[in-house]
Amino acid sequence: MTQQGYHVAVLGATGAVGEQMLNTLDRMDFPIASLTLLSSKRSAGKKINFKGEELTVQEAKPESFEGIQLALFSAGGSVSKALAPEAVKRGAIVVDNTSAFRMDKDVPLVVPEVNEDHLKNHNGIISNPNCSTIQMVAALEPLRKSHGLKRIVVSTYQAVSGAGAAAIDEMYEQSRQIMDGEEINPEVLPVSGDKKHFQIAFNAVPQIDVFQDNGYTFEEMKMINETKKIMNDESLEVAATCVRLPVETGHSESVYIEVEKDGLDVEGVRNLMKEAPGVTLEDDPANQVYPLASECKGKDDIFVGRIRQDLDRENGFHLWVVADNLLKGAALNSVQIAFSLIKLGLLK
Amino acid sequence: MTQQGYHVAVLGATGAVGEQMLNTLDRMDFPIASLTLLSSKRSAGKKINFKGEELTVQEAKPESFEGIQLALFSAGGSVSKALAPEAVKRGAIVVDNTSAFRMDKDVPLVVPEVNEDHLKNHNGIISNPNCSTIQMVAALEPLRKSHGLKRIVVSTYQAVSGAGAAAIDEMYEQSRQIMDGEEINPEVLPVSGDKKHFQIAFNAVPQIDVFQDNGYTFEEMKMINETKKIMNDESLEVAATCVRLPVETGHSESVYIEVEKDGLDVEGVRNLMKEAPGVTLEDDPANQVYPLASECKGKDDIFVGRIRQDLDRENGFHLWVVADNLLKGAALNSVQIAFSLIKLGLLK
Repeated sequence: MTQQGYHVAVLGATGAVGEQMLNTLDRMDFPIASLTLLSSKRSAGKKINFKGEELTVQEAKPESFEGIQLALFSAGGSVSKALAPEAVKRGAIVVDNTSAFRMDKDVPLVVPEVNEDHLKNHNGIISNPNCSTIQMVAALEPLRKSHGLKRIVVSTYQAVSGAGAAAIDEMYEQSRQIMDGEEINPEVLPVSGDKKHFQIAFNAVPQIDVFQDNGYTFEEMKMINETKKIMNDESLEVAATCVRLPVETGHSESVYIEVEKDGLDVEGVRNLMKEAPGVTLEDDPANQVYPLASECKGKDDIFVGRIRQDLDRENGFHLWVVADNLLKGAALNSVQIAFSLIKLGLLK
Repeated sequence: MTQQGYHVAVLGATGAVGEQMLNTLDRMDFPIASLTLLSSKRSAGKKINFKGEELTVQEAKPESFEGIQLALFSAGGSVSKALAPEAVKRGAIVVDNTSAFRMDKDVPLVVPEVNEDHLKNHNGIISNPNCSTIQMVAALEPLRKSHGLKRIVVSTYQAVSGAGAAAIDEMYEQSRQIMDGEEINPEVLPVSGDKKHFQIAFNAVPQIDVFQDNGYTFEEMKMINETKKIMNDESLEVAATCVRLPVETGHSESVYIEVEKDGLDVEGVRNLMKEAPGVTLEDDPANQVYPLASECKGKDDIFVGRIRQDLDRENGFHLWVVADNLLKGAALNSVQIAFSLIKLGLLK
């Protein structure tokens, strides 16, 4: 902690994303004068070590936010809906990692590499986008800036850690049971609150989050709607198919795009990726160099490879985009938003 | 065996696909007067039971095909290149499950539900398409017939059994090693003959078969070129991204299409799938009904679900297509070709 820092609260401190938020605040030396760790009643009382100091997790209540300047929320949508307005009322800026406010007109939805300037219009709450959206828009923004973006067709290959610790446990337990010839008993995935549960081990499940009336899942609609909002372009065509895989951490995405302006080629895309903030190019087919989910865990960057020009459309390109869904997809992006708030003089 | 049947040879009888071919010939009661089982020198001498009779596998040589009327080949491209012409010279019709002759102008590439009539132009060799191509074109053919097909953008989720028994073993061994905290030593996947090998367990590897000069993998080019040939439409736009998953058997595909004619909707697509030969519709989002790789093993049909109209383009549709890659993707389709040859009076 430093005298020159901010009074920060982390809500959901005991969860998978909360843990990554604390790690990220620590290693990026976020200026913190005091740190308040909050959680549900169930997890309150736990001790967490931060920069050598033992902190006790407290139950989150409206009063918890007295004197807090920055609150990082990652404890589920209903908790955010109840407590974010209370935190704002008490003077905090909330960076919310749930879907609760993402599509609210008055709430900026921010990936700093793409639309940091949207922060200027905040009204106390800032939403962190969905994990699968963040890595895609950050990789595509340099292409949009230089050549315009007409459409996106994405199919995802998403890790189970996006569904929480119980989903990770279920994947490993099922894997063992299947290899040992035992019966399996799916209870968590694809969606813990949904009616049916399916095998995730040695499988590919085309459902993430619940189904909407239009036949798309909520995860797919998040990718579609959030991308348009972040890129501030309602006319951008976005289509998504979201699939859960037996991968612990690391979302992969098969992304097809069409750009507006002519003249782009594979080398041009590679050069844009080389210069893109937060992006690492891994693209050398002759030497079998391409991004892999198994290699991205614990890394901040978004990895892009398998860049190919479409064989029928000159303005069409295919990319393989991989990132740690708990870092750039969640905790890291939230902390980056906090740094942007400081940079823009918005955190007081 | 029956007196009224044909003299049949199966080359590659000891492999994963060969085993499925024998199963399929048996359960579909293919009319067989005599059955010759062939393999490489290494596997020759093995005994295989077929319809209660014990048969000894023989080393495949040009002379092996004397008196053979139908030869089902599944022993790798170089074996096919060497022996298929020898079999044809001796009067056999060869149904070849390798990529050796697929793009030859004089060789029909056939999925019976799509282009059975192409068999009429055969010159002794008929190619069985690539597994990931077969299930896609069979599912899309009813849509092409009724509304015309303009373009396809597909991302695949492919099982390791397509890479052979060693790949299956590697996937399970690695899974155990990773869960036990042991070091892994990839030696087979993604491509056994390629320079580098990567973790397949708990991962998604965007390489199937070797890279071509244009940055696409051979698997991707197979899907692109074979689809155009089977559907007999060089102007059809096809784009593919092929990805290997830790799934034993069952390829899944996220398929986006655009049709030519207006007026199609989700119910229209569903009705076409209900009537499509070899296709089972599994599509009821409200009740979480969709195809899963884990459910398709050992089944003949292609399963289609997650049918959605694109939100930006009325003529755009998304489908999730799943099939057993060893059956419809290989052995079953080869045996179906043989039945079609009989039906069309081409097997003498």
